[in-house]
Amino acid sequence: MTALDRQEVLDTVTADRLAEVFAALSDSTRLRILSALAHHELSVGDLASMVGMSESATSHQLRLLRALRIVRGRKSGRQVFYSLDDQHIHDLLDRAIIHVQHK
Amino acid sequence: MTALDRQEVLDTVTADRLAEVFAALSDSTRLRILSALAHHELSVGDLASMVGMSESATSHQLRLLRALRIVRGRKSGRQVFYSLDDQHIHDLLDRAIIHVQHK
Repeated sequence: MTALDRQEVLDTVTADRLAEVFAALSDSTRLRILSALAHHELSVGDLASMVGMSESATSHQLRLLRALRIVRGRKSGRQVFYSLDDQHIHDLLDRAIIHVQHK
Repeated sequence: MTALDRQEVLDTVTADRLAEVFAALSDSTRLRILSALAHHELSVGDLASMVGMSESATSHQLRLLRALRIVRGRKSGRQVFYSLDDQHIHDLLDRAIIHVQHK
């Protein structure tokens, strides 16, 4: 049971934090990065070539997504491999895609 | 199976539409309205008093949410009752709340 079922109206602290996560997701470049990470862990270099961006621009977006715990990084030698932070993020994107595809 | 599982990277058209939905959700007032609608269908007047806003400000937000099919309205006499457009929207909000509450 989440705050959605427990409260009549979401408290402003939770609503503000939620708004911040959705703001991070309201960018099509970041969404394309996240969709690539839905399948497998990827390095910045792999991600950059998949979404057609420079490594530095990709890194910039990943830092933002990581700060909000939407993605996480795993160090291996000199490389960092990124993945979605958890299954909830995958489910959230999945539901949103179903929404836009059925309208 | 959604575009998330079918494509290596989300196509730009889907990513743009998705970004538009998330942009609508990146506002804590709209999120509080949606959380109230997660429980039951409500009139503009009921919603306005629940979130502590004027009816005209509430109507304005509802129009935006309706244009993106995030909420829907049902006319009954001279009143319109609003609800979440579908279960996917409920699930999407639910996953996002779980995300912010567990971080």
